[in-house]
Amino acid sequence: MSKAITSRSQDYSQWYNDLVIKGGLADYSAVRGCMIIKPYGYTLWENMRDELDRMFKETGHQNAYFPLFVPKSLFEAEEKNAEGFAKECAVVTHYRLKNDPNAPGKLMVDPEAKLEEELVVRPTSEAIIWSTYKDWIQSYRDLPILVNQWANVVRWEMRTRLFLRTSEFLWQEGHTAHATQQEAVQEAEQMLRVYATFAEEYMALPVIRGVKSPSERFAGAVDTYCIEALMQDGKALQAGTSHFLGQNFAKAFDVKFLNKENQQEYVWATSWGVSTRLIGALVMAHSDDDGLILPPKIAPVQVVLVPIFKGEEQKAQLDEKVADIMQQLKKLGIRVKYDDNENTRPGWKFAEYELKGVPVRVTVGFRDFEKNVVEVARRDTKEKQTVSMDVLVTHIQDALKDVQQNLYDKAKAYLESHITKADTWEEFIKILDEKGGFVSAHWDGTAETEEAIKEKTKATIRCIPLNNVQEQGTCILTGKPSGQRVLFARAY
Amino acid sequence: MSKAITSRSQDYSQWYNDLVIKGGLADYSAVRGCMIIKPYGYTLWENMRDELDRMFKETGHQNAYFPLFVPKSLFEAEEKNAEGFAKECAVVTHYRLKNDPNAPGKLMVDPEAKLEEELVVRPTSEAIIWSTYKDWIQSYRDLPILVNQWANVVRWEMRTRLFLRTSEFLWQEGHTAHATQQEAVQEAEQMLRVYATFAEEYMALPVIRGVKSPSERFAGAVDTYCIEALMQDGKALQAGTSHFLGQNFAKAFDVKFLNKENQQEYVWATSWGVSTRLIGALVMAHSDDDGLILPPKIAPVQVVLVPIFKGEEQKAQLDEKVADIMQQLKKLGIRVKYDDNENTRPGWKFAEYELKGVPVRVTVGFRDFEKNVVEVARRDTKEKQTVSMDVLVTHIQDALKDVQQNLYDKAKAYLESHITKADTWEEFIKILDEKGGFVSAHWDGTAETEEAIKEKTKATIRCIPLNNVQEQGTCILTGKPSGQRVLFARAY
Repeated sequence: MSKAITSRSQDYSQWYNDLVIKGGLADYSAVRGCMIIKPYGYTLWENMRDELDRMFKETGHQNAYFPLFVPKSLFEAEEKNAEGFAKECAVVTHYRLKNDPNAPGKLMVDPEAKLEEELVVRPTSEAIIWSTYKDWIQSYRDLPILVNQWANVVRWEMRTRLFLRTSEFLWQEGHTAHATQQEAVQEAEQMLRVYATFAEEYMALPVIRGVKSPSERFAGAVDTYCIEALMQDGKALQAGTSHFLGQNFAKAFDVKFLNKENQQEYVWATSWGVSTRLIGALVMAHSDDDGLILPPKIAPVQVVLVPIFKGEEQKAQLDEKVADIMQQLKKLGIRVKYDDNENTRPGWKFAEYELKGVPVRVTVGFRDFEKNVVEVARRDTKEKQTVSMDVLVTHIQDALKDVQQNLYDKAKAYLESHITKADTWEEFIKILDEKGGFVSAHWDGTAETEEAIKEKTKATIRCIPLNNVQEQGTCILTGKPSGQRVLFARAY
Repeated sequence: MSKAITSRSQDYSQWYNDLVIKGGLADYSAVRGCMIIKPYGYTLWENMRDELDRMFKETGHQNAYFPLFVPKSLFEAEEKNAEGFAKECAVVTHYRLKNDPNAPGKLMVDPEAKLEEELVVRPTSEAIIWSTYKDWIQSYRDLPILVNQWANVVRWEMRTRLFLRTSEFLWQEGHTAHATQQEAVQEAEQMLRVYATFAEEYMALPVIRGVKSPSERFAGAVDTYCIEALMQDGKALQAGTSHFLGQNFAKAFDVKFLNKENQQEYVWATSWGVSTRLIGALVMAHSDDDGLILPPKIAPVQVVLVPIFKGEEQKAQLDEKVADIMQQLKKLGIRVKYDDNENTRPGWKFAEYELKGVPVRVTVGFRDFEKNVVEVARRDTKEKQTVSMDVLVTHIQDALKDVQQNLYDKAKAYLESHITKADTWEEFIKILDEKGGFVSAHWDGTAETEEAIKEKTKATIRCIPLNNVQEQGTCILTGKPSGQRVLFARAY
């Protein structure tokens, strides 16, 4: 293989970068901390986005678009939110460049074009959206507002990693407004379920549904629900969050409504988001040392057909047969590619599609063709099978289903075998250092203890699982009484 | 009607704003020059985007995503492009806010977080993309690159108008790289055809295909192709542009490739874009004094059903029948809404959907229902017809097609009757002032004359039509010899 990939055991982090870059998903850019999402990676994102968008619409949401910029005075209105994001804000201060008199052909910021009020490039849009909802909401009849936005956001990062942590990223942010607390909480919970369903059914990524500890909440939220996934190196990854915002933003932006009893009340809010970070999770959850392994439901190419032949006459016969197969597969909505590029050899192609994680590869060799068979190879198990052309289409359909299910089952087994109970500090450390994964342990419920554990071990409380078992115990660090276990892990 | 709309004859500009705001398409925001695209307007944009995206993919393009920010040193590399956009650039100079020591609870830009190099918020992405293509292109085998990006861009505007001219707008920008000049020119021409087809077949907006005069070219382009539409007030609107960029960006970013003869050559480029500005064109081309008129193919709601009844028993009977109709329509892919909201009266609903431009309205009255008929009203002609339920679905399908065709035919007739030849300066002025539309006149081909005409009349050369008739004549202003007529108009 020309594109050698670092193995996981050698350097997990480099393995990840190799997969992302050599697999054609993304690349570094000339802009510090910002990445380029390449066509193959963007198609993967489109497939994920389209499914999520469908699920949002099925649950009654509509898309809208709000400005990229947030005036500083609006940004600072909800204090906790502002405080949480202030250190990561890219700020526009000027609106014009001019020729640099000291450097011909160069430009400089025009000092005369300084903005009266600085504009923050949105790190999240609660502020700009709630300053708008004030105009949209007068009475209970205007509620609920169920709006989502697909957008780019910027959070300045010093240490960046492709997809996992970049200064600019793409995401969706839902922002809903409700007449009652109960309805808002239900919305936040519903969207967490949507995220979990999407992760599990489309990304083949099993997740733990939970709620964050107060220290890990979104800045400005009353409660942050989350889904947490587990990567192959035993580190956790937060894959999506859904926030119950209470009346915090309504109060900051004075958004009241006249309720059915004709009384003014503050509006209840939620927000929820997932981002291109999910692609990082996808890569790390399923792939192997030979390259990406993509779940069929969202893979840009689900099936690739590679011909093997000698001379144009053989090629012409294969082409005719392949055209027929392609047509049948496309009719079924299967994303299929025929790679008859004559500049590269079959062996190179096999390695390339292995690297790119195409779930099913069909080798159409002329000799096989004469026997009315082809070779079908699965990317996940690397199994190869000789299949009659007569049943090929059905076989491919089944193989795609099997790959999807197998990836999920494998990841699920890994996750379940990596939730380990610890009852002493020694066990706790040992599990984190040797086995990895989630450690289920008692915690005394204080932010101080949480912080101390983080400092000692780099592990954080990933979540308190929903419907958590209530049991008496003692805090893993302080020995103080605790009413339930929580999940700790080192995380991305 | 509660939402009174200014009539076109009273104040065309206010009529437009009323339609956009009261029709629920967009609204002003707290950020100077930026707008909010509301759910109804965004759904319209999604419908337009999806069709365009399909057409781009059918012509071999893939989507990708490049950074929002362009480092100043990259931005200034292609001098003409930089010069053209320098005056409209929002510039990020800092990456952090901090608490303002003099104002508790307020934030200020942290002077210690000044960027070493300022970042321009992209007004267009040639610079950032061509600095990337340098890494992607080594040999002719890497060409062509056929990439498109859906993104937000920022061009600082002092005088803004919803959709037509805003500081931030949404658009797509295609950026392609080719081995030969001929292939790049063909690509630019192909994408102009795609835009024209989209405008005419989906937006029902007839356009003139042409090429810009040198003064009106995109900054950095060798040739700018354009489609020009005509609004109801006789002003032209540039609806899309496709640029042949020659080797300008390849030279600025040193992007060379090894050709088949093993020689280094600069790469040839195109770029092409349409934006949310198209929505402004759509509104102004078709609508009337009662509200929006939207072409069925892209209308967010194509058919609305409004029930009229007394009491719950009648309602239940109507509901059952409507559910059946809805199901049939949805199966056919028709976007249909049943408005049985009991807080508003039928009359209010009729006005509301007229305002929102829903192409077909079906009134399901209980009395009619008993006779197995409904009333079908077309938004464009306001014709009402009593239709048997037995043929309703077919009738609606036909009505949608008719509305689409009628809007196009009407706009086409208007456009054709508003391309007027002028052979004297007096005629030229008179047509511009009294009739409006395009004036076909001879021009001596100089930028000076073009500028003088613009100063005297506010009319610009909109384009030199493709396949323009060559005929001898004399310039409308200077009397100098001219080999062809060009199209002048006052424009948005």
